[in-house]
Formats: sequence, structure tokens, C-alpha cells
Amino acid sequence: MTDIATRVWNHKWKIDPIVRSLIDTDFYKLLMCQSVFRNRPDTDVTFSLINRTTRVPLADLIDEGELREQLDHVRTLSLTRGESTWMRGNTFYGKRQMFTPAFMDWFEQLRLPPYHLERVGDQYELTFEGPWPQVMLWEIPALAIIMELRSRAVLHDLARFELQVLYARAMTRVWEKIQRLRDLSDLRIADFGTRRRHSFLWQDWCVQAMREGLGDSFTGTSNCLIAKNRDLEAIGTNAHELPMVYSALARSDEALAAAPYDVLADWHEEHSGNLRIILPDTYGTKGFLDRAPDWLAGWTGIRVDSGDPEEGAETAIRWWRERGEDPTGKLVIFSDGLDVEKIEHLHARFQGRVRVSFGWGTLLTNDFRGLVPEDRLAPFSLVCKAVAADGRPTVKLSDNPRKAMGPEAEVERYKRVFGVGEQVAEEVVV
Amino acid sequence: MTDIATRVWNHKWKIDPIVRSLIDTDFYKLLMCQSVFRNRPDTDVTFSLINRTTRVPLADLIDEGELREQLDHVRTLSLTRGESTWMRGNTFYGKRQMFTPAFMDWFEQLRLPPYHLERVGDQYELTFEGPWPQVMLWEIPALAIIMELRSRAVLHDLARFELQVLYARAMTRVWEKIQRLRDLSDLRIADFGTRRRHSFLWQDWCVQAMREGLGDSFTGTSNCLIAKNRDLEAIGTNAHELPMVYSALARSDEALAAAPYDVLADWHEEHSGNLRIILPDTYGTKGFLDRAPDWLAGWTGIRVDSGDPEEGAETAIRWWRERGEDPTGKLVIFSDGLDVEKIEHLHARFQGRVRVSFGWGTLLTNDFRGLVPEDRLAPFSLVCKAVAADGRPTVKLSDNPRKAMGPEAEVERYKRVFGVGEQVAEEVVV
Repeated sequence: MTDIATRVWNHKWKIDPIVRSLIDTDFYKLLMCQSVFRNRPDTDVTFSLINRTTRVPLADLIDEGELREQLDHVRTLSLTRGESTWMRGNTFYGKRQMFTPAFMDWFEQLRLPPYHLERVGDQYELTFEGPWPQVMLWEIPALAIIMELRSRAVLHDLARFELQVLYARAMTRVWEKIQRLRDLSDLRIADFGTRRRHSFLWQDWCVQAMREGLGDSFTGTSNCLIAKNRDLEAIGTNAHELPMVYSALARSDEALAAAPYDVLADWHEEHSGNLRIILPDTYGTKGFLDRAPDWLAGWTGIRVDSGDPEEGAETAIRWWRERGEDPTGKLVIFSDGLDVEKIEHLHARFQGRVRVSFGWGTLLTNDFRGLVPEDRLAPFSLVCKAVAADGRPTVKLSDNPRKAMGPEAEVERYKRVFGVGEQVAEEVVV
Repeated sequence: MTDIATRVWNHKWKIDPIVRSLIDTDFYKLLMCQSVFRNRPDTDVTFSLINRTTRVPLADLIDEGELREQLDHVRTLSLTRGESTWMRGNTFYGKRQMFTPAFMDWFEQLRLPPYHLERVGDQYELTFEGPWPQVMLWEIPALAIIMELRSRAVLHDLARFELQVLYARAMTRVWEKIQRLRDLSDLRIADFGTRRRHSFLWQDWCVQAMREGLGDSFTGTSNCLIAKNRDLEAIGTNAHELPMVYSALARSDEALAAAPYDVLADWHEEHSGNLRIILPDTYGTKGFLDRAPDWLAGWTGIRVDSGDPEEGAETAIRWWRERGEDPTGKLVIFSDGLDVEKIEHLHARFQGRVRVSFGWGTLLTNDFRGLVPEDRLAPFSLVCKAVAADGRPTVKLSDNPRKAMGPEAEVERYKRVFGVGEQVAEEVVV
């Protein structure tokens, strides 16, 4: 019998909100937010949406009014009592009170700041300006909203059986990937797929499939809301945003050269253990490690997020040996464009030589490749980055020149300061 | 686990259509439509919405855009194969092929004609003009749409538990009514509540409750779609519309005086048995029966739809006796503003003296009285009537002057022609 009250309730919604919680975001955003709140609270930043896959005409696919409704909805959100309790009371990596009372007091009052949205050709220009600790929290919801609105636009054209079979196929695909991963001994893998997920419900389904399929090999999810709802570990450390903004604020070449290490010095004071993970590729991994102070070699591990991942890991292993560290005790987290084949390959090559861990993102939570005509549900490379800090442009080089960003003259200056030479271009899929 | 495909499907709907089938209408409309199609296919009529309860500000409650969407949706409907099969193949009152192949061929091609909608003060002016057989089919969907949009407008302000408890209370109320009706011996009762239902799903629920609660005492529903879906008898005969339009077309007082009998003469040729039910009150029951030809006394029964129902039934019983008919074999159908008390009372008074039957309408399918603040879900008296035929105004007198309609001079003329004197005014609740 139809539950009339529930049906009436479901049809009362003016919109179907995509992001319904301020902690429907990556754990590392909250960690970084607290660090910024403590160390650089008065920095003004601009974040901007960048669609690297320009053949996906976002402004043709997504209605501007619907996009505004979703963004406006996020601005109505505030931290709920239960969310605050979870953040205040939870144990992260075995540490209690990861978030300080001062930060939590601030976060409980937070509403996300205004956005600027404009259609330019077949793309949207979407920017956020204001105090760094506020603006930075737009990144993940903005990306998740645009990704899911794009999914909805494509799904809109599908009939009922087509939808049912589409999800049946996608579920089968995820499950078969998970079955293959079961064969990898001592695998450690987490969900990093919030920002470019097909939809919230789909990410939630994938996380549950990972838990059932992989058991203890599944170490958790970067998504705080899902971690809270599903009683999982929230996973994450830090990202390029910190060295990019610190570097933009540097007033001399000397200060610029020191900026990425200043970031980690601040981090070193705040965190220990599993949170001491180096992200070395912002201005070239090799140069970064060569110039690194010795105390950094004592950190727990490294995250390999661009360039050839084998080369990145080998570079790190060599560096640890040079600095007198035992690589077998070090953690290497692979998180760039992973799918099962790459995970299997990296696992085979590095397991035992270092402690290996995987942060599986877009191809876990948004692999609908080949499932609809013209591949209109294929994932694509959408990012939302800090592009300016206190009026000065940011720069990212990374280990893949196709992921570089910033004004040309600044890019050249950064290459000179950080001693980056020729780089190998790799295709950016997601 | 959330069924993602179903959820995506549910949220794809641009609107939640209220009327989704051309047979989501009263059975008697289809019977009358066939009669009109055969006898008066070229008559042009105007139907108009009339809100007798002017304190309900429909235009303030219901968004004009949503109303247009719903009306436009009805205009996209056509008879489906299954609906046509049901109409062509079903047995109605034991008779096969109730609907002729010629009528069904026409009906299968039918789309409802355009509507005219205008806001006037806090009410809507909603009219339909065109060939009678087409325009007449707007009555029930137009009423059902406005009633349900009004329900939705009120429900929109209710929270989730309020909705759940609202329906829990309404269900309990309907069920308790049904329990009381179980005590009435040899009860015969049908659902006549399509036009002023709270919602389609609610009518469907009420019908199922009647079936389970009353068993064989529940004789069926006037709603063809529900009759088809639930494998029930479709119930109905004819309505005021026929004598009103025939009368408006009459070119002299003599022709006018004969018009209501012309209607039944046409009906007499087309139908027998349970479909030969007199609706005598259009221009006053007493005068109508006094002047009736003898063959009409041989009909199966009478429907009492306005005025004091006991007086109406007693008048009919006297009339049958005067014409040498045995009232105990005659059917009296009560269908005006029924609720349990009135049903119990009428049953007690007439059961055994005549064959009694009840057509329970608005207070079966829309009794939410007292369940929300300010009684904003209370049923109200909304009708959609033929107001003109071939450019001439229609008139209805009925046995309750508060249900009278038509231009004043014409009302006086009709009163004179049909010998209607003083009438007792009764409150029109629904």
C-alpha cells in the first residue's frame, strides 16, 4: 500500500538538495581549515572553478537557476549539534580533540560566504572570495554540486528501465573491482571520491560496498558525513592549497623557496603520526625533497598525487635512504587517478618495500564510463582551486605540466626558484 | 538500502500529475458522453468552474502556473489500449458492450479541448467551450485537479510528523465510519467521491478500505480508473447536465416543459435496468414527477440529490403508489452530502420500504475536517457546470434554492414553466 504521508512529504521539496551538511566534505579540508584558522586567518583568497575537460559544456548541460538553488542551499547550512558532537568527540587516528574548542566555536557559527556565478560561453565562471578559512570550505560542495547536476542532466533523458539497468551495471562494475582488490594481501585503501562523485547516494553506496567487500582492508572514507553516518574512520591529511597560498604570499624569491617548508613546519607543530604526510609535488617532487630540511624525513609518509606514481614513490624511497630513514616503515599514499589495474600494479611493486596505502577517488565513485550513449556520464577533470591570495596569483606546477596553473611569468619564476626542469606530460583523465 | 534508480526516477518528474488517465473520471460522464455523442453531438456548450464556498480563496492558495501545468497535462492524455479494452470488454450492470464501437472509435481519438483560465480577485475563472461530448469530459478532472492542488497548498506547510499523523487520523476516521456502517443490514453503498477528493491516492485508499471493511455491501466506485485497477464495478447513471442543456436548447415554453422528459426518453431507448434511474430535481422533484409520463414510473429507481432527502424519497414513494407501482421493488439512491449519521438515519427509515442505495461522495474521500489549524483542509462546494448551450444560458433550480443557478429572468421563467413555488433553503456543505 502506498505510504501517502511519505509520498506527500517527498513531493513537497522545492529542490532535491545535493549537499545537505557542512561536513559532507573531505576530512582534510577541515584539518586544513583549522590550520589556516590558527595560522593565517586574515588572508583573503579567491577560489575558482576550473573545468579542465572543456569538451564538457557545463553551462549547456546545467540550468543556471538550478545551480544557483543548490549553491544557495549550501549557504543556508550550518553545523548541526550532532555534527559538532561528532567532530568534538571523535577519535581521529587515535588522537582525541583533533579539533580545538576555539575552532569548533568558530565553525559552529559559520555560514559559507557568497559566490559569484556567470556564464561564459558554454562554461560557468564560479568564484568565491573572502577570508581563507571560510572560502576554502566551498571547494568540495561546489564540485560535488556541479558533478551531480551534470549527472542529473544526463539521467533526465533516461527512461525507467534504462535507469534501473544503468545502476545495475554500475553496481556490478564497482563490485567486480572490489572482488579483484580482495586478492591483494594486506591492502589498505580508502574512499577519496567525494568531490567528483556521480551523486551523494552513489558515493554512499560505493562506501558500503567497499566495507562489505573488503572488510578491514577498507580503512575509511574522506567524507566526514558518510564516516559519521556509517561509523567509519574519516581519512585525510593536507593538500596543495596550503603551499600554493603560502607561496603566493611570499614577498621575495627566498621567502618563496621557503614557503612550502613553512607550511609543513606549521603542520609539524599541530599534528603527529599519521597526519604527518608530505605532499611534495606542488612545485616538483624531486627538488622539494632535495632541498627539504632533515626533520621532514622523520615524517610518517608521503602522498603521490601527480606525475608517474612509480617514479614518485622511488624518488621518495631513495630520499629516505639518503636521509638515513628506513623506507619499509614509511607510508606511501597513492591518490592520483587510481583504478583497479593501477592499484594492482603499484601494490605489486611497492608492497613490502614501503607501507602502501591508496586513496581511491573518481574512478571509485564515478565510473559510469561507457554506460550511456556518447559516454555522457564519463567523469571529467573538474577542480576548484585557490587562484589568488591577498590579491597575488597562485601557482601550481605539480609533476605533470598538464596540471600546472598560474600566470605564465609567475610559472616561469616558480620553475626557476624551485629548480624545475623538463617534465613529462601525462594525460589527465580525472 | 536506498533504491537509487527509483529515487532518481521519482525526482525526474517536472510535475506530479494529478489526473493521469482519461478514465480517472465518473462512470456516468462516460455514459452521458455516449448519449450526447449519439443524440446531440453538434451542440456547443460552455462549462464553468463555480466555487460556491467563496471564503476559500482559490487563487491565493493555488499557483496559476501549477494549475496550468496540471490542466495542460490532462490535454496530453489519450485513452490507452488497456483502458479502451476495459471499456470495450467490461460488463456493466450485467450488460456487455455498454459502449458502442462507434463511440469507442471516437473516444480513442479524443484529446480534451483548450481551456480558458483567468484570475478574478481571489478566485479563478476557468471555462471550457466547444462540442458538448468533448467539453463535458473536463468537469471531473478540472474539479479533481483544483481540489488536490488546494490540498497540496495546505499540506505544503506541514512538517513530516504532522503529515504522518494527519493521515493516521484521517485513516482512523474513515475506518471508524466504515465500522459503523457494518452494522447496517443489507447496506448497499458506493464511492461517488472522485470530483471533490482530497487526492487521487486518498480516494484509492478509501475505496480499498471500503472493500475490506464492507465486503459485498460495497457495490463499487464511480471512478472508472480505480474500478479498472481494483477490479470493481463502475457505478453511475446520469446527471443534471442532460436536462439543463436540453432545456437551454428548447425554443418555446412548451418545448422547455418537455425537455427533461425528452432526456429520459432518449435514455430509455439506450439503457435498461439499473441504468434507468430518474434524477428528478433539476427543476423541482414534485412538479417533475406530477407531470411525468406513465412509462417513467416503470423505471428502476430514482436518485435523490438535493433538498430534504427524506421528503424526496417520500415524494417518490407516493408517486410510485399513485402510478400503481410497488415501491418495495424500486431503488432509491441517496447521493447528496452524505455522511455516516445521514446514511444510518436514511437506512433506518427507508430500508424495506424501498431498495435503498447510497452514493457516498465528498465526506468519504475528503473528510479532513478539523484536522489542521483553521480547518484549511475542510471540503468545500466546488462545481463545474454547463452554463450555456448554443449561446443560451442554462438554468438549474434543484430542490434547494442555494444550489440554483442561471440568469435571474431565466430562473423566474423556469420556475413558472415548471410550477416551482416556495423552496426550503438547506446549507450546502459540499
